[in-house]
Amino acid sequence: MEATEEKLSRRNFLKNASTLATGLAVGGVVGGGLFAGGCASNGATKTAMAAKWPWPYQKLDPEVVRKKGYEGYYEGACMYGAVRALVSELSAKVGDPYSSLPIDMFRYGEGGMAGWGSLCGALNGSCAVLNLASDKKTYPKLVTELLNFYTTNSFPSKKHDAYAKFPGQVQSVSGSTLCHVSIANWCKVSGKKALSPERADRCAKLAGDVAAHAAGLLNKMADGTFAAAYTIPPAVQTCRGCHAKGGTLGNIRGKENCEQCHDLNYKAHHPSF
Amino acid sequence: MEATEEKLSRRNFLKNASTLATGLAVGGVVGGGLFAGGCASNGATKTAMAAKWPWPYQKLDPEVVRKKGYEGYYEGACMYGAVRALVSELSAKVGDPYSSLPIDMFRYGEGGMAGWGSLCGALNGSCAVLNLASDKKTYPKLVTELLNFYTTNSFPSKKHDAYAKFPGQVQSVSGSTLCHVSIANWCKVSGKKALSPERADRCAKLAGDVAAHAAGLLNKMADGTFAAAYTIPPAVQTCRGCHAKGGTLGNIRGKENCEQCHDLNYKAHHPSF
Repeated sequence: MEATEEKLSRRNFLKNASTLATGLAVGGVVGGGLFAGGCASNGATKTAMAAKWPWPYQKLDPEVVRKKGYEGYYEGACMYGAVRALVSELSAKVGDPYSSLPIDMFRYGEGGMAGWGSLCGALNGSCAVLNLASDKKTYPKLVTELLNFYTTNSFPSKKHDAYAKFPGQVQSVSGSTLCHVSIANWCKVSGKKALSPERADRCAKLAGDVAAHAAGLLNKMADGTFAAAYTIPPAVQTCRGCHAKGGTLGNIRGKENCEQCHDLNYKAHHPSF
Repeated sequence: MEATEEKLSRRNFLKNASTLATGLAVGGVVGGGLFAGGCASNGATKTAMAAKWPWPYQKLDPEVVRKKGYEGYYEGACMYGAVRALVSELSAKVGDPYSSLPIDMFRYGEGGMAGWGSLCGALNGSCAVLNLASDKKTYPKLVTELLNFYTTNSFPSKKHDAYAKFPGQVQSVSGSTLCHVSIANWCKVSGKKALSPERADRCAKLAGDVAAHAAGLLNKMADGTFAAAYTIPPAVQTCRGCHAKGGTLGNIRGKENCEQCHDLNYKAHHPSF
């Protein structure tokens, strides 16, 4: 087993290091081996272990997270904004290990991967934190609920209007997890351009809204009241009947709205329609 | 400024803690304040700071990363597999801070976000590491090069054939960053089902292939030989001429292949065609 696969609670790490330091204070021997009690060594470097997953969660105020997501967008765009909102609050409440997480790692999701228009960064970042703070059985359900929320709700919310650069903006529903679709739909109803300051402010609000909803889901998990509610919409289920697992074709994987991309007069291609 | 925004090199953290422990050994006072020299406290909890971004990079062997990506897929799927391959190798070479990164955080991207078929997890995870190990000016270029590689190359590579469960598989080009499209295209040419063990093995190889290419990009960066080569394809540039920034409509953001989704007899909707 490799060093990185061994998990050690950081609290135990601190405790062990503290205990070791006590011993060292008595013995008077201090040096490069200080962390041997809590860390593995690969011969060349000392290594601190990642805290055991899932990381401990404490309930957050979604409205604080919402405002921080908005503010964080203007520091490092959508994915960074969402992660920063959740992790800075968890750092304040839980402390370590959240305070050791490199939030700057999550800049890359901006504009759907450095501007490519793929997956929405607010969603990408929020799901990373959902994963970090919940276990193997729970995180897929939380992720699914957040994706369903994102694709079916109207954004941006009005809850940023007290401090936003552009309060009272028109809302749109993306119907998709993709930045490209989410932005295009909003530009259509707002009449604003995709690289306008108004659209940027809309996405700043969205970073906060998605992170706030993620906090709400985690709060329910903490309370023991979270229940998975998502069901695949009938229109998607119709397509999946043949194309997904168990269907005669079984040639696709996914739960997104099929007709947003496959609207190419599909009836002509489907003998059953 | 909040605690989480202050950055402290973990090497300095260890050095400071070690120095403090030396002092403690002399003074004989040891307790909860052990890490005060290297950490901030929010009053309730002791917090370890994230190491300063970007994290130090040392060149990796892409073939080692490729095999680890394949193996990691079978532990935690595509996003986890790609991150584990890169981060476990960086942990072995650099040690801390990579060894403190919670790799389990990156399970959520599996199957394009818990099976939704959105962004490919291998791409999502590899880009997170590209971001972590490069600076603000460089990471968008590395991400763009990796996305271009992913969307234009044939996968899976033949380089896993010595150990793969299903060697010699047929290859396909996705033309998209999306899991759904990538899998559907491969199922079409292979005749295999989307939830088949053969398709899973194809994606295991792909996790390794994408992580290996990311390592190659970072190696070039380390050598000072990385040069951004991506240019927007002519067909996409034609659409962007009106729809992207600077165009008369300016109503979209993105660089993906337009015609994969917008193939709805678009000439009828475009007076200029």
